[in-house]
Amino acid sequence: MDSLFSPSLQHWLDLAGIFVFAISGALLAVRRNFDVFGIAVLAEVTGLGGGLFRDVVIGAVPPAAFTDLGYFLTPLLAAFLVFFLHPEVERINKAVSVFDAAGLGLFCVTGTLKGHEYGLSLTSSVVMGLATAAGGGVLRDVLANEVPSLLRWDREVYAVPAIVGSSAVALLIHLDQVRPSTTVGAALLAFLLRLLALRYNWRAPRAWHRRSATVDAQATHGDAAREPENGGRQVGSG
Amino acid sequence: MDSLFSPSLQHWLDLAGIFVFAISGALLAVRRNFDVFGIAVLAEVTGLGGGLFRDVVIGAVPPAAFTDLGYFLTPLLAAFLVFFLHPEVERINKAVSVFDAAGLGLFCVTGTLKGHEYGLSLTSSVVMGLATAAGGGVLRDVLANEVPSLLRWDREVYAVPAIVGSSAVALLIHLDQVRPSTTVGAALLAFLLRLLALRYNWRAPRAWHRRSATVDAQATHGDAAREPENGGRQVGSG
Amino acid sequence: MDSLFSPSLQHWLDLAGIFVFAISGALLAVRRNFDVFGIAVLAEVTGLGGGLFRDVVIGAVPPAAFTDLGYFLTPLLAAFLVFFLHPEVERINKAVSVFDAAGLGLFCVTGTLKGHEYGLSLTSSVVMGLATAAGGGVLRDVLANEVPSLLRWDREVYAVPAIVGSSAVALLIHLDQVRPSTTVGAALLAFLLRLLALRYNWRAPRAWHRRSATVDAQATHGDAAREPENGGRQVGSG
Repeated sequence: MDSLFSPSLQHWLDLAGIFVFAISGALLAVRRNFDVFGIAVLAEVTGLGGGLFRDVVIGAVPPAAFTDLGYFLTPLLAAFLVFFLHPEVERINKAVSVFDAAGLGLFCVTGTLKGHEYGLSLTSSVVMGLATAAGGGVLRDVLANEVPSLLRWDREVYAVPAIVGSSAVALLIHLDQVRPSTTVGAALLAFLLRLLALRYNWRAPRAWHRRSATVDAQATHGDAAREPENGGRQVGSG
Repeated sequence: MDSLFSPSLQHWLDLAGIFVFAISGALLAVRRNFDVFGIAVLAEVTGLGGGLFRDVVIGAVPPAAFTDLGYFLTPLLAAFLVFFLHPEVERINKAVSVFDAAGLGLFCVTGTLKGHEYGLSLTSSVVMGLATAAGGGVLRDVLANEVPSLLRWDREVYAVPAIVGSSAVALLIHLDQVRPSTTVGAALLAFLLRLLALRYNWRAPRAWHRRSATVDAQATHGDAAREPENGGRQVGSG
Repeated sequence: MDSLFSPSLQHWLDLAGIFVFAISGALLAVRRNFDVFGIAVLAEVTGLGGGLFRDVVIGAVPPAAFTDLGYFLTPLLAAFLVFFLHPEVERINKAVSVFDAAGLGLFCVTGTLKGHEYGLSLTSSVVMGLATAAGGGVLRDVLANEVPSLLRWDREVYAVPAIVGSSAVALLIHLDQVRPSTTVGAALLAFLLRLLALRYNWRAPRAWHRRSATVDAQATHGDAAREPENGGRQVGSG
């Protein structure tokens, strides 16, 4: 399997993905007013959570997160940078989104590749790519006691770019065209799709036959009551 | 171990359990106003979460959820059906409960059987049956940012039917009477117990020596403030 | 590896750590008004969660929690005691903290030792010690739908005592001085540091460059809206 992809490049892509996801976790921790250890833990969980889930599920234990010191130190570096140098509060939301998009692109590629290396079928490898890309963010949101962005209707589509990127990698595997240039292309494809989704507010449909007006009003009211951090954001951007 | 239980029947029972749990996850996603991907993800997590936990813990990796395409596609089918054909909003609560009860019955049986196949003791197999049956629902509620139904006092008992069903299977194993008819009987027993609990509002006691009045008032007030989705339900049923 | 540490003593330390963590989980369940099964489940999850995470990650499956009946029964005993004999409501917060501190001390020691036994480096073993010590409490808070204490700025430092205790064990391993007396000393060190942190309200800093006044006000307001259980505590102590 080492011929599929240069181990060294995959390692650096992994570290880059961990770093940008960890930045997004650390920024959310700052927004939620966590202390320095909360920032570090949320950076570690966001950066390593998707890969940890992947490794535990495919049986690659102990996971890279616990055998490669670089994997552990990278989120600490991200937490350190955010702790001292994080952007102005009002810029945080946008920065979280862009870093998160970059992590999405990198992780759906490495997740799909590693899933296939460990014997999963192409379809399961695509699912594993999506799980690797989305897992860290879901854990981040669960630990911050928020409804995961991945699931929310009022957030731009997240799953589609990851599925497209993972499927592109599966196609490359099928065509025996896995090379640094092509896989980086797949990561960029997912990254750009996610940025476009953010730029143009692409949203996925909700269930049919909903009693729209009443339910939406209730839901909106409920979300406002449940998620006062939105209030913080509005103040921050005001 | 294949003589214990027809692999094909266990496979179909598994798929049926996954399907009904996935329906319950998809319906909750609709109630929480998630988009189509949120519906699919919550269906997958609810349908596969308990079995995934079981397989990771007993070392059956990669788990069936990632090696059997049917396991992955079944929740998607459930999400598809709910997306287009979900019942009227006011009927959702009841449907979630009944489907969830069916999944409970099926999963406590298959979880106990698989735990024992992988070498757990009878007691541990019962615990594994309960964890398999309750795991998907707990993950569903955690992702939807709700207190798991499993834990709440103001919900009908969920653990008792699962423990009874799992214990019945353990007894069957001990008596060497594991056959399709007897195991389906154990699943029906748990299913019916859960339906009875729902019908007659069976609730489990809370801790002794609580200062009932004050604390209950606080808790009720707190729950109302925390869980506006209850408001949505009341409107739906009005 | 059996020369590192008496298996019997490690087993008893593990059971003691499970017991005190389970007490903290059961007490939180009482405070959250869960029923008897919710109390038992939260006791099991809090007591076994950290070790379960550790065992799954290092590949020690099936985990001790599912092979050793004592590991399963200990949290039930804790739940039983709390159910019938839990202290007056107004004393609960303090009791949770002290029991939790004792579990922290014991688990960071056993987690570091077991991580090293399974081939992790000393650094990774320290991380595993922290994860073992903090994992159960994080799962407890996530299931109770609270922001994990571990992450919150307005809670006394939790990570520092665990890191100090785990690092002390790593030093003992490095110096080949792992004996019951020295490892119990490391557990006591972490326990006492945590108690001092609670006594003197040691808190960790938050990110630099925050717009303190506005953001704090927002955060306080938000937390008050999100976490009415604080209201319950104030009433309980009034």
